[in-house]
Amino acid sequence: MKNSKLKIDRQTGVPIYRQIYERFRDAAHSGSLQAGDQIPSSRSLASELGVARGTVEEAYSLLSAEGYLMRNGKRGSKISTHLPALPKLRESRASEKIGKTNNQQLSPASLSPFQLGVPALDLFPRKIWSRITASQSRRFSAANMTYPEPLGFWPLREAIAQYLALSRGIQCSPSNVVVTDGYQGALDLISNLILRSGDKVWLEDPGYYRAQQLIANSSAHVVPVPTDASGLCVQEGISRAPDAKLAIVTPSHHSPTCVTMPLSRRMELLAWANDQGSWILEDDYDGEFHYSGKLLPALKSLDTQNNILYSGSFSKTLFPSLRLGYLVAPDKILHEVEHAMNIRNSGVATLQQAVTAQFMTEGHFTRHLKRMRTIYAQRRNALAEALRDMFPDLLNISLQGGGMNIIAALPETIRDVELVERAAQKGIQLQALSTNSLISQGQNALIFGFTNVPENEADRLCIQLKEAIDLR
Amino acid sequence: MKNSKLKIDRQTGVPIYRQIYERFRDAAHSGSLQAGDQIPSSRSLASELGVARGTVEEAYSLLSAEGYLMRNGKRGSKISTHLPALPKLRESRASEKIGKTNNQQLSPASLSPFQLGVPALDLFPRKIWSRITASQSRRFSAANMTYPEPLGFWPLREAIAQYLALSRGIQCSPSNVVVTDGYQGALDLISNLILRSGDKVWLEDPGYYRAQQLIANSSAHVVPVPTDASGLCVQEGISRAPDAKLAIVTPSHHSPTCVTMPLSRRMELLAWANDQGSWILEDDYDGEFHYSGKLLPALKSLDTQNNILYSGSFSKTLFPSLRLGYLVAPDKILHEVEHAMNIRNSGVATLQQAVTAQFMTEGHFTRHLKRMRTIYAQRRNALAEALRDMFPDLLNISLQGGGMNIIAALPETIRDVELVERAAQKGIQLQALSTNSLISQGQNALIFGFTNVPENEADRLCIQLKEAIDLR
Repeated sequence: MKNSKLKIDRQTGVPIYRQIYERFRDAAHSGSLQAGDQIPSSRSLASELGVARGTVEEAYSLLSAEGYLMRNGKRGSKISTHLPALPKLRESRASEKIGKTNNQQLSPASLSPFQLGVPALDLFPRKIWSRITASQSRRFSAANMTYPEPLGFWPLREAIAQYLALSRGIQCSPSNVVVTDGYQGALDLISNLILRSGDKVWLEDPGYYRAQQLIANSSAHVVPVPTDASGLCVQEGISRAPDAKLAIVTPSHHSPTCVTMPLSRRMELLAWANDQGSWILEDDYDGEFHYSGKLLPALKSLDTQNNILYSGSFSKTLFPSLRLGYLVAPDKILHEVEHAMNIRNSGVATLQQAVTAQFMTEGHFTRHLKRMRTIYAQRRNALAEALRDMFPDLLNISLQGGGMNIIAALPETIRDVELVERAAQKGIQLQALSTNSLISQGQNALIFGFTNVPENEADRLCIQLKEAIDLR
Repeated sequence: MKNSKLKIDRQTGVPIYRQIYERFRDAAHSGSLQAGDQIPSSRSLASELGVARGTVEEAYSLLSAEGYLMRNGKRGSKISTHLPALPKLRESRASEKIGKTNNQQLSPASLSPFQLGVPALDLFPRKIWSRITASQSRRFSAANMTYPEPLGFWPLREAIAQYLALSRGIQCSPSNVVVTDGYQGALDLISNLILRSGDKVWLEDPGYYRAQQLIANSSAHVVPVPTDASGLCVQEGISRAPDAKLAIVTPSHHSPTCVTMPLSRRMELLAWANDQGSWILEDDYDGEFHYSGKLLPALKSLDTQNNILYSGSFSKTLFPSLRLGYLVAPDKILHEVEHAMNIRNSGVATLQQAVTAQFMTEGHFTRHLKRMRTIYAQRRNALAEALRDMFPDLLNISLQGGGMNIIAALPETIRDVELVERAAQKGIQLQALSTNSLISQGQNALIFGFTNVPENEADRLCIQLKEAIDLR
C-alpha cells in the first residue's frame, strides 16, 4: 500500500484512527500489503497525514489486537504472517468435514488448550443440560413461540436476580435484569443507548480486546486509561478525560491480568462517576472464579446513586455457544433499554432462556460453579507449576487471587509476540499481553488460559510448547 | 409538557426529529403529558422551534407508530390512552402467574388472533421439532459449546443456500449466507456497517414500523418514499433523494399492504441502485406465502452487480421466539460483515442453528411451508368472507396475491385509529394502516393478521369484533 493512497477524510464522521485502521486492514486482505512488510512508524505516518501520533497509535493498536500487525517495540511493526482468517478459507474446510460425515452432526471445531475465556467444556454437566433442554422443548407451547419479551424471559430474570443477591452482593429486582445475547450484546446495546458521537469512554489499557474493538468501531472516542496492580488508574483517567461519559471496568479480575481492584480504588471510581453523573459499566465476566483470599462483592453492590450498569455472561459460567448474558440496569434507563432491545433484535430466543432458568432454579448452576472453582484452582496450580518447571529462566509467574488466565512475564530480551508467532507455527495458540494494549507499548508477557488444561496434561503441553518455541 | 421545555440542541449529533420524539415519549411516560392531551399541530410546533415541518412530522409519525399518539387527521393528534406498556407493569403480571404455578413452565403469554406477522403457531410440527432438539442437544459436543462461527453454523448456511436456490431463485454460495438473530439483527448489522451519519435511506411509506424505528434511531436520515399498487415508487424516491445510500424494500409482498412489486418496477429500482452504487436491502419476510398467480423470484435473483443485500427470517416460516434469520451478502462486503458480527455478538447460539439445519435437510421445512401455503389460503379466504359478511358497508377488502395480512379499507367518515382504540378497549388487538405511515397521512384501513384465525373461528371473531367496535 502506498501511503499516498491513505487519504484522510475529515467530513465523513468516521473517526480518523478508524479510517487508518480500515485502510491497513483492507490492504492486508487485498494483498497490497504483504506478510512481513514493515509499516511506517506512528510518528512518521502521523506527520505525513497531519494527524496526532496518538491517533495513529490507536489504529495500530487495534490492528495489532486483531492480529494484523506484529509490533516489535523499537524495531517497528510488520504485517502479520498470520492474518485473521478470511471467511471463505475457514468455511471450505468446514465444508469438507461436513461432506465427509454427510449428516447434521455439529462440526468438530478444535479447541486450543490454552485458549482464553472458555470454561472447562470437558466438565460441563451435559446430561443434565440436555435432559432439561428436551423437557423444555417438549413442553414448549404456542404462546412461547411468539416474539419473546424484549427484556428477557421472566423466570430467568428472577433466577439471575436471586443468584446475584446471594453470590455477588447485588440487591436488585428481577425487573432490573435484562437478558442479552452475551456480554457483547450488552455492550453493543449500551454503546447505542448512551454514547453519542464524540463521547469519551475510559477503557482499561491493557484491556479486553472485544470491548476495545466495539467502542473503537462506534462514534465514541476511546480514552485508554493505564492499569496497575489495583486495576484501572482512576486518577490517570480523571487527568486524561474528567468528563468521560462511560468507564468500562473489570474490577473483580481485570481482563486479562486478573488483578482485583481493591475497595479504596473502587470508592475513587464511584466518587468520580457520581460527581460527573457518568456511567460505569462493570464487566463481571468471571467474578465467580476466585481461589485465594476473599472475593469482593461486585462494585455494583456499592452503587447508591445508580450510575453502574452491571453485566455478567453465561459464556464463562455455562458455555459460550449459548450466547446468553445479562445486564442489571437502573430504573432510570430501563425504559430506554426496552425500547432499544425491541428495535435491535426483539429479545433473545426463548428456549435457551427457559433451559437456563430451570438449570439455575434446580440448583445445578451453583453446584456447577462450586465444582469449577475447586477444579480451576487445581488446574491453575498444575499449569503454573509445569510452566515454572519447564521455563525457569524464561517465565515469571505470580498468581492473582482469581481469574481464568495465568500471566507469565518475559525478560526484555524476548518479545511476547515473537513467541506467540513461533508457537502458532506449530499449531499452539497463545496470546501476547502486549497486544491487549491500546496505547502503551504493553507489558511483555504470555497469557495462558488454564481452564481447559487437565492437571495431568499440563506437563505434556509444556513440553510441546518448549519444543515449539525452541529457545536454544 | 410545556413547549418551552422542548429545546432543540443542534450540537449533539442527535437528529432533531429524534429529539422531538424523545421529549414527547418521555413526557408521556413521566405523566407530564396525559392521555387525551392535545398536542400542537406539526405546523405550529415547527414554527415555534424553527425547524422544518417535515421534521416534526417525522417525530409525530414515529410516536404514532409506537402507539404514543392517536392521529386524527385534521382534528389534530392526542396522547394515546394506551401508552406502550412500561416494563414493570408487564413484569409484575408475569410474576404473579409464575408465582401461582411455581415451576419453570413457560409463561402463557397471550396471542391475539388478529396479530400481524406471527405464523400459525397451532399448526407448527412441535413434536418433530422437539425430537430434533432433544437429539441435537444429546449429541452436543464440547467443541460445539465454544464460541460459534460468527457468520453462522455451516450446515445451516448450506441448507439455507439450497433452499433459496430452489424456492426463491437465488443462486448463492453458502459462504454468502450469514445467520443473524432475526431480520432486526440483520438490519441492525447493516445499518451499523454501511450507514454513516447523515446517509439517506429510502423507506417505504407506509412500511414496516420496526425498520422505520431502527433507521430513525440511527444517525442516518430517513427518506420516506410513497408506495402505490406496485410497491415503492422508485421515481418518487429518485426525485426526493437520488443519492440515497440504501433502499429498504419488501418486493414480494409489501409490508403491510401485501402488494407485489412487478418486474418493471424491480428493474427501475435495480437500475437506480446500479447507477448510484447504492445498496438495496430486500426484506423477503414472507415471500413463501403466495396464494394466487405466479410468485416472482426474489429481486435478488436479478442482482447482476451485487448491490442487493437479501434478508429472510425464520420468524414467519418457523416461529418468532427462535430469533433466527439470514442475510445473503455479496463477497465485497462479507469480510466487513464477519468483522461486525464478531464485534457485535460473536454470532448466534449454536444449538438452535443445528436444530434448524436438521429440520431443513430432513425435508420438514419445505413440507411445513407447503402445508402452510394451503392452510393460509383457506384461513385468508374464510376471514375475508366473514369480514365482508359482517361489515358489508364498512370494510372494503381486496385481496392481493399473497402475504400474511388482510387490508380492509374504511370510508373517510371513520378513522382506523378510532376503531383500533375501541377494539383494544374490549381486548381485541387490531392495527391501523395509517400508523404505519411516516409522513403521509396514511391510508385509512384496518390490518388483520389471519394466520392464527382457524377457518371455523372466523365468524365468531367477527361477531366479537362487531360488538366491540359498536358502530350503531
